[in-house]
Amino acid sequence: MSKKVAAFLNDRRPPTPFLVLDLGIVESNFKALRKAMPDSRIYYAVKANPAPEILTLLARQGACFDAASVPEIEMALAAGAGPERISYGNTIKKEVDIARAYELGVRMFAFDSAAELDKLSQAAPASRVFCRILTSNEGADWPLSRKFGCDPAMAYELLRIAPSKGVVPYGLSFHVGSQQRDPKQWDNALKTTAELFQRLKVDGVQLQMVNLGGGFPTRYRQEVPSPRVYARTIHKALLTHFGNSIPDTVIEPGRALVGSAGVIHSEVVLISKKSATDEKRWVFLDIGKFGGLAETMDEAIQYPIVSARNGRPEPVILAGPTCDSMDVLYERADYRLPNDLKVGDRLEIRATGAYTTTYASVAFNGFQPLAAYYI
Amino acid sequence: MSKKVAAFLNDRRPPTPFLVLDLGIVESNFKALRKAMPDSRIYYAVKANPAPEILTLLARQGACFDAASVPEIEMALAAGAGPERISYGNTIKKEVDIARAYELGVRMFAFDSAAELDKLSQAAPASRVFCRILTSNEGADWPLSRKFGCDPAMAYELLRIAPSKGVVPYGLSFHVGSQQRDPKQWDNALKTTAELFQRLKVDGVQLQMVNLGGGFPTRYRQEVPSPRVYARTIHKALLTHFGNSIPDTVIEPGRALVGSAGVIHSEVVLISKKSATDEKRWVFLDIGKFGGLAETMDEAIQYPIVSARNGRPEPVILAGPTCDSMDVLYERADYRLPNDLKVGDRLEIRATGAYTTTYASVAFNGFQPLAAYYI
Repeated sequence: MSKKVAAFLNDRRPPTPFLVLDLGIVESNFKALRKAMPDSRIYYAVKANPAPEILTLLARQGACFDAASVPEIEMALAAGAGPERISYGNTIKKEVDIARAYELGVRMFAFDSAAELDKLSQAAPASRVFCRILTSNEGADWPLSRKFGCDPAMAYELLRIAPSKGVVPYGLSFHVGSQQRDPKQWDNALKTTAELFQRLKVDGVQLQMVNLGGGFPTRYRQEVPSPRVYARTIHKALLTHFGNSIPDTVIEPGRALVGSAGVIHSEVVLISKKSATDEKRWVFLDIGKFGGLAETMDEAIQYPIVSARNGRPEPVILAGPTCDSMDVLYERADYRLPNDLKVGDRLEIRATGAYTTTYASVAFNGFQPLAAYYI
Repeated sequence: MSKKVAAFLNDRRPPTPFLVLDLGIVESNFKALRKAMPDSRIYYAVKANPAPEILTLLARQGACFDAASVPEIEMALAAGAGPERISYGNTIKKEVDIARAYELGVRMFAFDSAAELDKLSQAAPASRVFCRILTSNEGADWPLSRKFGCDPAMAYELLRIAPSKGVVPYGLSFHVGSQQRDPKQWDNALKTTAELFQRLKVDGVQLQMVNLGGGFPTRYRQEVPSPRVYARTIHKALLTHFGNSIPDTVIEPGRALVGSAGVIHSEVVLISKKSATDEKRWVFLDIGKFGGLAETMDEAIQYPIVSARNGRPEPVILAGPTCDSMDVLYERADYRLPNDLKVGDRLEIRATGAYTTTYASVAFNGFQPLAAYYI
């Protein structure tokens, strides 16, 4: 814990649960990634944490922004980014929202279907459009379904006809899966991407950009490779598949920039057993799946959880405070907490700067959304 | 659709997505349940939908309230229910919250562990306490985990010592699982309950109340038995196990009162295929898992979804509008929509009055929480 955070906690003592996020860590994460991948433009995935403090910091650092909706575009603009630094990266947009983004000056849009290309043609003339392709998500802790992207043959067809629709076929994007711990996963996607570049070039369509997506990890319970390892592996794949004509590249990190900057402070509400012979303790916290820890779904993202006590670590089942039985955080993931843990103790749930505050429900069970402090 | 709802939609034309809930249906659901189970006190599970309009209506009808938190207690009080009509039904409570509820006049509390009994002893002296026991959840569409309840031997022990802790051992509760379509599931739990009543009586502890929990279903895609069938089956089980000394009974319906009263109106944002040879269309709506349809998790709750078009129904995959790939509603559940469905069409997602508004995230992807109109 930095001195700044320690001082804040000591001065303010906010009631739990709350997130405290150290903006200095966001800045150093950004700088480390920019240093590792100096040739890629960084579009911060606003959805990971849209706090104005974060957006303003990143805008000042020169970041670009990947927005999922018009409100996210407006937040990026309010933080000081010009519209030329904003990509409307959601492939599922109402035409009225595309028109609004266009009116705000945004000229870069994602799509993955004929119907969406038609909407862009109508509502965002002469904009740069990039097509998302389906890729494998092996190795990702939060793998993506087939929801986004189309197969390469369809991407080829749509980009080929894009000029006739009055938009600029700008490039391709893919996503190797969130919290992707295997940097080699980019290689396969880049192979497909390079083939599409080549085929389209033959047809007179010169793409300029590859959007390498997100997927860059945060360290949770397991060690992850450093940004430099990702950079090197991706650069090698670009060289292999594009040779001496490497296109412009874009990356869309979210959790890699903000995840490690945040810590949720929670109080132990109850410790119990279900029978006298139960081996595991149930430990109930004042935050759960509906209060911001939605990514514990299927125990996918495993946050480090830390107690200040020194007792022997023994197995626990961790659950949230709502009357919803789905609100169990970790039952199979072998979490251990000190055997002298007490009701009322404080726990730190670390690496919770991404995908927490905005996932919180408005008021499920009457509990307030997650309070957050950006310092 | 009632005339009242039709008139509202015609006059107001709110932007999608939104929930419109017909309070008249809540009232008739309440009356039907009260008529079917005249001997049970009805504690409405506030968490299902805490809209003040619903709470006020039910308070006027004489309902009691099952609250999960202090804010829910305050909402029930604000709606006109006295504290004697409120049960603090969450088994996971901070002592400070128990104290606050006690201060507000609440004298009925759930627990399922020694630590929680100690908190009640400290913060809610002389209150009536009931212990929740673990039961099987076979037949439930939204089965509960082992999160709530303790085994009967532990319940026996805790209720036996309750008087020495300065609280009144009032009764037992159990929950057969939400959206429980098999009324016979109450029988097994009542057998265990009656045995505990008997054992405790021998020790001089005379319990008075059985809380039969919730679980009463709403009709989604599948037909469900009527309240009268549940009433008859449960009454028979009570007679079998308690003979001529049937205790006071309490039920805690949530979705059974409000589910069928609500309809979410959504717009089709995009219809696409992932490849030229794909058989199923992907249909993307402007509401998804994070906008209020959290109970589509694992495709557990299957809402009827209706289009006004007449084309031949053909298979679709339904998904929400966020950039989160988990935001897929139904992929395996064989939903079909007309083959002439168009982008911009309105869809009705029916039976969505329960567990929707408060499950909505605060602003995931920049999307606003679910708007709701109670008429």
